[in-house]
Amino acid sequence: MVTQLEHNAVTVTDTQIKPVNQVHMYTFDSLPLQRGGRIAPVTMAYETWGKLNTEGDNAVLITHALTGSSHSHDAERPDDTKVAWWNPLIGPGRFFDTSRYFVICSNVLGSCYGSTGPSSIDPNTGRPYGMRFPLITVRDMVEAQRRLIGHLGVRQIAMIAGGSIGGQQALEWAVAYPELVQKVIVVAATAALTAQAIAFSEVERQAILADPRWQGGDYEPGQGPDAGLAIARMLAMITYQSEEAMELRFARRPARNQNVVAPSGFTDLSERFDVEGYLYYQGESLVKRFDANSYLYISRAMDLYDVSEGYPSLEAALSHLRSKALFIGIRSDFLFPAARVRWLADQVRAAGGDAIYAELDSPHGHDAFLKEWKQMTDALNLIKE
Amino acid sequence: MVTQLEHNAVTVTDTQIKPVNQVHMYTFDSLPLQRGGRIAPVTMAYETWGKLNTEGDNAVLITHALTGSSHSHDAERPDDTKVAWWNPLIGPGRFFDTSRYFVICSNVLGSCYGSTGPSSIDPNTGRPYGMRFPLITVRDMVEAQRRLIGHLGVRQIAMIAGGSIGGQQALEWAVAYPELVQKVIVVAATAALTAQAIAFSEVERQAILADPRWQGGDYEPGQGPDAGLAIARMLAMITYQSEEAMELRFARRPARNQNVVAPSGFTDLSERFDVEGYLYYQGESLVKRFDANSYLYISRAMDLYDVSEGYPSLEAALSHLRSKALFIGIRSDFLFPAARVRWLADQVRAAGGDAIYAELDSPHGHDAFLKEWKQMTDALNLIKE
Repeated sequence: MVTQLEHNAVTVTDTQIKPVNQVHMYTFDSLPLQRGGRIAPVTMAYETWGKLNTEGDNAVLITHALTGSSHSHDAERPDDTKVAWWNPLIGPGRFFDTSRYFVICSNVLGSCYGSTGPSSIDPNTGRPYGMRFPLITVRDMVEAQRRLIGHLGVRQIAMIAGGSIGGQQALEWAVAYPELVQKVIVVAATAALTAQAIAFSEVERQAILADPRWQGGDYEPGQGPDAGLAIARMLAMITYQSEEAMELRFARRPARNQNVVAPSGFTDLSERFDVEGYLYYQGESLVKRFDANSYLYISRAMDLYDVSEGYPSLEAALSHLRSKALFIGIRSDFLFPAARVRWLADQVRAAGGDAIYAELDSPHGHDAFLKEWKQMTDALNLIKE
Repeated sequence: MVTQLEHNAVTVTDTQIKPVNQVHMYTFDSLPLQRGGRIAPVTMAYETWGKLNTEGDNAVLITHALTGSSHSHDAERPDDTKVAWWNPLIGPGRFFDTSRYFVICSNVLGSCYGSTGPSSIDPNTGRPYGMRFPLITVRDMVEAQRRLIGHLGVRQIAMIAGGSIGGQQALEWAVAYPELVQKVIVVAATAALTAQAIAFSEVERQAILADPRWQGGDYEPGQGPDAGLAIARMLAMITYQSEEAMELRFARRPARNQNVVAPSGFTDLSERFDVEGYLYYQGESLVKRFDANSYLYISRAMDLYDVSEGYPSLEAALSHLRSKALFIGIRSDFLFPAARVRWLADQVRAAGGDAIYAELDSPHGHDAFLKEWKQMTDALNLIKE
């Protein structure tokens, strides 16, 4: 699905940008962090499509979800919805029009697709950071992106858009750097996670941490907590969908996939349900492509995010926003409930901002922003000038 | 909370009934099982309140939820809602009036509070069954209860009532033995679990199975998969509540409980949220009182339950029902959605049955049937003659 890079840190420096499967690298010296400490150096893996204009003001920044990568668009296979996560929305003539905009998508700080994260080599030890990687926040992710776009010569962000933790980053950008952001599109993200969403997230992390192969985070590549990460992914996949979607797709049908092995490796207690085979498969797929420690750090950043942090109130935070804002909720999303996305749009307007709210009428839950191309395009067009 | 018995099988026979902390034991020779095989012998741990009349027709059967026990009422502390799970509904003058009815509550087949389950000694090996315990179903649970009430001289069940898997048992009783059941009260239970509920249940089981201390089910008492079971319980506790309830109770507040250790035993990635401390505590509490293999078997029986199994259609199954039926849904329950409980009541009426539907207007999710005493009593009174 995505271009998987080695889990080792990429040592390409600022002056040595080179494409790796279309992925570029930018390394800068040091990033001071919101909760203290710093990461030094920091590499950002990114892809771009289109050209930056001479004014440097036609940049579009796309921010990805928890286990995503910079590969939001695939210029060679632009009509394949499987090879790049926002493929149908990006490209010549599409909403994020690459014939008009300079579209940038970077792998988020803390991840394992080329940007610096817990699987990167800590220059102080010569070994992967593991849990010695410092606590990172959505604000830190934004700061790392800001260094990257400065390096690329961007002076104004025409649009920033993302879903889930990508939506949190988009919101944080618009609040922290109102003068840089013309339009902000926040999809399936809220001012802060609910207690229920934090609770699911923590169960996922405990499944990873309790796996003895996690080894305090110091596992060798390929020797990590596969069962724990697969169980975490199984749970996450439930929260990304909805009762309605799962009933439509699986109901109580027997498993089509009898071959995939459950995370625990043990045989089934009885006949297998279709939804079980599906979840085992999803768990196994993530284990092949994602780093368990990155999962811990990025999901924790999601939990910790509260747009009002560092401001006297939510209103005070939102009053900074100067961008034209579009908030997109999803009817069946229970991780980031539509009512809370709508409420956030209302709060932005109450704080004097220019905010539109649109709702995807989809049964697909949180994941609808990665599936409902027609509805997404219609919603996005609401913010087109 | 409940009277914990030794995890070893109780060998008290039919003629040697004796109270153990008010818990009685009845052992019978053999129970043939719905999915094949048999369990021999079978012990049922149970409690009773009130007296059976000479006609043997004033019995009330109370069926408990997944990790519950026979201790639905505490005659010595009848006003303490913590010591017995349906205490406020049972007793002299209460809905399940012990001055009028002979109230029976048995620990379910497969559990670890005295009734035969995976932690019982397999007479063929002299060791606990572990995973050699056969697959059991809700129908088998009902059959075991039928043997018990026959032994007690019951000829008619005036009422059977239970919530969650207890509600599945109540429904199964009314469909399988319509001539024996005068009134049936099905609380927070449906015709069959949704794909989403099965999915949550399977994530819980995988957390147990993936714990290396599970040892294929052959752990020594006190040496079991504590981390896995605690993680399973954390997830289950989320599904027993609701977004609304958790927001009211925890929101994003910092943890009051900083001392409880997470299932994995690892230190927190950042400051702890209140909901996290709460879930760790709930996990730890269940580990102290419940058997992991029982959790696997009973939760699987819940998943497998489908009232239409063995009948040509749901309508055919429900047309057997002759009891006056009360179905109670809970507005905020997402494990057994209220709309599906209401739909079941509608189907019973469509099949010619006498069914009332009542809904608890509670934010407490699935657990509301163990909390909303006033609303529960009001709903139950709808079926009072």
